[in-house]
Amino acid sequence: MSLDPKIAARLKRNADGLVCAVAQQRGTGEVLMVAWMNDEALDRTLTTRKATYYSRSRQKLWTKGETSGHTQQVHEVRLDCDGDTILLTVTQEGAACHTGDHTCFDADLLLTD
Amino acid sequence: MSLDPKIAARLKRNADGLVCAVAQQRGTGEVLMVAWMNDEALDRTLTTRKATYYSRSRQKLWTKGETSGHTQQVHEVRLDCDGDTILLTVTQEGAACHTGDHTCFDADLLLTD
Repeated sequence: MSLDPKIAARLKRNADGLVCAVAQQRGTGEVLMVAWMNDEALDRTLTTRKATYYSRSRQKLWTKGETSGHTQQVHEVRLDCDGDTILLTVTQEGAACHTGDHTCFDADLLLTD
Repeated sequence: MSLDPKIAARLKRNADGLVCAVAQQRGTGEVLMVAWMNDEALDRTLTTRKATYYSRSRQKLWTKGETSGHTQQVHEVRLDCDGDTILLTVTQEGAACHTGDHTCFDADLLLTD
């Protein structure tokens, strides 16, 4: 498999060949996490409908939940206006965060009304 | 002004000294846009409650809406589990996208159920 050339042509990758990816819970709209994708991660996400990212620390693809079971079933994929960010609408199984929190943004509130 | 050292110590900046920032509409939960912040942009966002980012292309701070009038009033600011992404809950005035779209993710749908 390789990424559809019509999509690949619209991506504006960073120096590491990656685009930013935001995962949002279907229905509630919660922002669950932000990670990175290379072309192959995006292709796998589109074709398998299981959210797949590129780990910058491990320098390899990872399908969300492959070890934890906390998978993300993908419903929608959107590319932003300048081609450097993907927005996924997903159904999150279990916790999105490796800490066990529902989202990666639950623990550290810097400002509130 | 400078960023609270207790917050600055928790940031995990990229090689350019930046963290990723996701702006989400209060109430609807729509993801409006993704941009970047350096320490000063985050400090200004926290202290003025007007979303302020760092432009990588222009290499300077920009307060969202300073020319367009399409400001973002900031209600909540959260830092993610690994310290490299900020989530803003905002009230968007007018269009978030420079194209005139409501969000930067409106125009290019790659996959849907």
